[in-house]
Amino acid sequence: MSLETVLNRIEETLPEALARLMDLLRIPSISTDPAFAPDCARAADWLVAQLRELGFEAAARPTPGHPLVVARHRGPGRHILFYGHYDVQPVDPLDLWDRDPFDPELQETAQGKVIRGRGASDDKGQLMTFVEACRAWKAVHGSLPGNLTIFLEGEEECSSPSLVPFMQANADELRADLALICDTGLFADRQPAIVTTLRGLLGEELTITAASKDLHSGSYGGAAINPIRVLARIIAGLHDAQGRVTVPGFYDDVDELPEAQRAQWQALAFDHAAFLGEVGLSTPAGERDRTPLEMLWSRPTCEVNGIWGGYTGDGFKTVLPGKAHAKISFRLVGRQDPEKLREAFRAQVRAGLPPDCTVEFVAHGASPAGAMAVTDPAFEAARQALSDEWGMPAAFVGCGGSIPIAGYFKTILGMDAMLIGFGKDTDQIHSPNEKYDLQSFHKGIRSWARVLARIAG
Amino acid sequence: MSLETVLNRIEETLPEALARLMDLLRIPSISTDPAFAPDCARAADWLVAQLRELGFEAAARPTPGHPLVVARHRGPGRHILFYGHYDVQPVDPLDLWDRDPFDPELQETAQGKVIRGRGASDDKGQLMTFVEACRAWKAVHGSLPGNLTIFLEGEEECSSPSLVPFMQANADELRADLALICDTGLFADRQPAIVTTLRGLLGEELTITAASKDLHSGSYGGAAINPIRVLARIIAGLHDAQGRVTVPGFYDDVDELPEAQRAQWQALAFDHAAFLGEVGLSTPAGERDRTPLEMLWSRPTCEVNGIWGGYTGDGFKTVLPGKAHAKISFRLVGRQDPEKLREAFRAQVRAGLPPDCTVEFVAHGASPAGAMAVTDPAFEAARQALSDEWGMPAAFVGCGGSIPIAGYFKTILGMDAMLIGFGKDTDQIHSPNEKYDLQSFHKGIRSWARVLARIAG
Repeated sequence: MSLETVLNRIEETLPEALARLMDLLRIPSISTDPAFAPDCARAADWLVAQLRELGFEAAARPTPGHPLVVARHRGPGRHILFYGHYDVQPVDPLDLWDRDPFDPELQETAQGKVIRGRGASDDKGQLMTFVEACRAWKAVHGSLPGNLTIFLEGEEECSSPSLVPFMQANADELRADLALICDTGLFADRQPAIVTTLRGLLGEELTITAASKDLHSGSYGGAAINPIRVLARIIAGLHDAQGRVTVPGFYDDVDELPEAQRAQWQALAFDHAAFLGEVGLSTPAGERDRTPLEMLWSRPTCEVNGIWGGYTGDGFKTVLPGKAHAKISFRLVGRQDPEKLREAFRAQVRAGLPPDCTVEFVAHGASPAGAMAVTDPAFEAARQALSDEWGMPAAFVGCGGSIPIAGYFKTILGMDAMLIGFGKDTDQIHSPNEKYDLQSFHKGIRSWARVLARIAG
Repeated sequence: MSLETVLNRIEETLPEALARLMDLLRIPSISTDPAFAPDCARAADWLVAQLRELGFEAAARPTPGHPLVVARHRGPGRHILFYGHYDVQPVDPLDLWDRDPFDPELQETAQGKVIRGRGASDDKGQLMTFVEACRAWKAVHGSLPGNLTIFLEGEEECSSPSLVPFMQANADELRADLALICDTGLFADRQPAIVTTLRGLLGEELTITAASKDLHSGSYGGAAINPIRVLARIIAGLHDAQGRVTVPGFYDDVDELPEAQRAQWQALAFDHAAFLGEVGLSTPAGERDRTPLEMLWSRPTCEVNGIWGGYTGDGFKTVLPGKAHAKISFRLVGRQDPEKLREAFRAQVRAGLPPDCTVEFVAHGASPAGAMAVTDPAFEAARQALSDEWGMPAAFVGCGGSIPIAGYFKTILGMDAMLIGFGKDTDQIHSPNEKYDLQSFHKGIRSWARVLARIAG
């Protein structure tokens, strides 16, 4: 069996694969700091060299920011595009690191061997699982699997300014039948998972204006309307007693979870007490009669992300302010239309304004929810492959946040994505002492070999 | 008639009185800036010299801050203590002044002659109305009227740190039968007024804590409780649909306005449309079925003076914050007990907290309302005196704020105060181009001569 041969090859060459990852980790490709631009270019070139060695037509493609790496292997079968990013987060505060963030090391810990260094998990270690799977495949088969594009970004940690223009300008080249994104994690640190739904986001900022200036609460208190009270009433009215959002039509385009998906989620070993307990909470605070995973993955929300008004410094000032402000966001699911809900929200706020108050809005981001077409057989095939490798059933899971790249693939290139990754919550990404478990790296490579065996070619 | 003689004397010597005020205004006695401490001392010494010239036993009394001036004239009748303050506000922003704030000038304006300069109205011009009335009295009668103490502060504009300790240490010396305080204004800029009620104040700061740290709204939104929502609900619940404060027992110690007082207030030419219109409002926002003057003078309130939580900078951050904060104050009337209401407020907040939330409180100021014993015949006598001078009936009015000195006189020295002043809303106190109308100064001196004729000796 050739998959077995590939898996054996991965076992035999793990030390070399690890050494290659260490080489990449040594390049301080911090994208947000212009001082490291040459290092970003060096990381891109290093990857291009690796991919050419494997037989890809690969190039570092210039952008106004850091280069993108595009590598192509033409072969039989569906065109599959793999996405990862080679840039990393800054390392401050440096004094909280136990060693140089760019002098990576394999360390023994009570939880097993870990690869310690900036980018080990996010996302160099993850993207290298795919590259190493391709390498083992090539070594065994003499050629790469199927019909592949590898697409690696260098600005993921600084809001991807060059990504969308590049994708728009090179849409024909990049458009594939399916995308693979390796930038997520295992479920509950141990169960393989494929993210199939992502929540969308709608951001709004509002300013309530009452009096034309700040007033003295002794001179005006009682007679003049207080915009903080008005804002508090608006916010308090955004949810009903059942925890449902009151914006008219909010749930019109929200579908109930398919029964099969609900059953699968219920089978997940999600410890909601631990999930909440870790941040000092105990009681799920969302809609009544929903499980915490539903609240997070399949139900829309409304959150106040910020509020301010009046005097907020030390001590006390008896001001009756003229203005009050809030930043409010909605996480969206299903077919909820962000712009339609923006208007509904604004209409609700305007309708609730008392006399003498006006409201101004600032529109922030608006992105619809993402739901992958899991009826594509590749999803079930990948689920089987992951289950085989990890010895437990892989799950289709949701993601409470948005992963912008998945949205861009859908909206710009019209392709669905399978989000598969091997990170753990303990990886300390974006923090000092980032690590990637050797197990994640090792079984990650094996996972991709199994996935490719089932869906490529 | 000797009062007529005194009034004539005031007419004849007005230019000299004005010149003396100008001398005092030239001393930059800014109390809040230590650089001006010598000037504060100089102002105190200047006043001591004036008062000695009139026959007072006067001295600048040292404190840890700026000196207090105490002047005593023993004579027949009730002991009356007059209070004013010789310190002034800072003058920034200096470039908004039309002339040197400490080079005062008598200016012609469309509204009549004004004395322009820092402190002209607050409070040097006002305190000198009383000193000049004494001077004219002395010139005519050969001696000061009655049994007088003059008590002048130099730290009113910087929260009076030395005042209470000094009053406590010298209570026997300062305790009089009645206090006169000259630091308020005419009603609606034209009608003489005696402030007989002052609202008290209770200040509270609260912090609602939910999660142990700020969370990502994608990862936790829907399942984790948002403390801004909790705080908004608490604030929204502090008033009922009638605009009444919901704190249990809040109105227990609030008396309805006596009918005579209500009638007098209704007779006042208070233009509530103009009052609110000046700050861009049109609709009184307090309790239903109360007049605006009642809302301001005789009804307690609850205001949110500040609120903050989450991300408040530019742009957007999808944070689900761990904490939310507010500063809340209550204006008190009648016999409302600040500390009792503090506990009732805290109990109400605690009772309304959802699971997983805690609250911490910081106590800010607490002062009861002040209501003068207007049954003391001196009040009616002073009202008659002011009515005679201004040609229209003087009113007993309320004050929506607190005037701390009146509270201290009551609590430390056990004496009521008559708050009589001649400032106007247009005086720009605390602002650039402060002024005092020559009419306020002139008729203010005459007013005090008339009041003294009725209540002193």
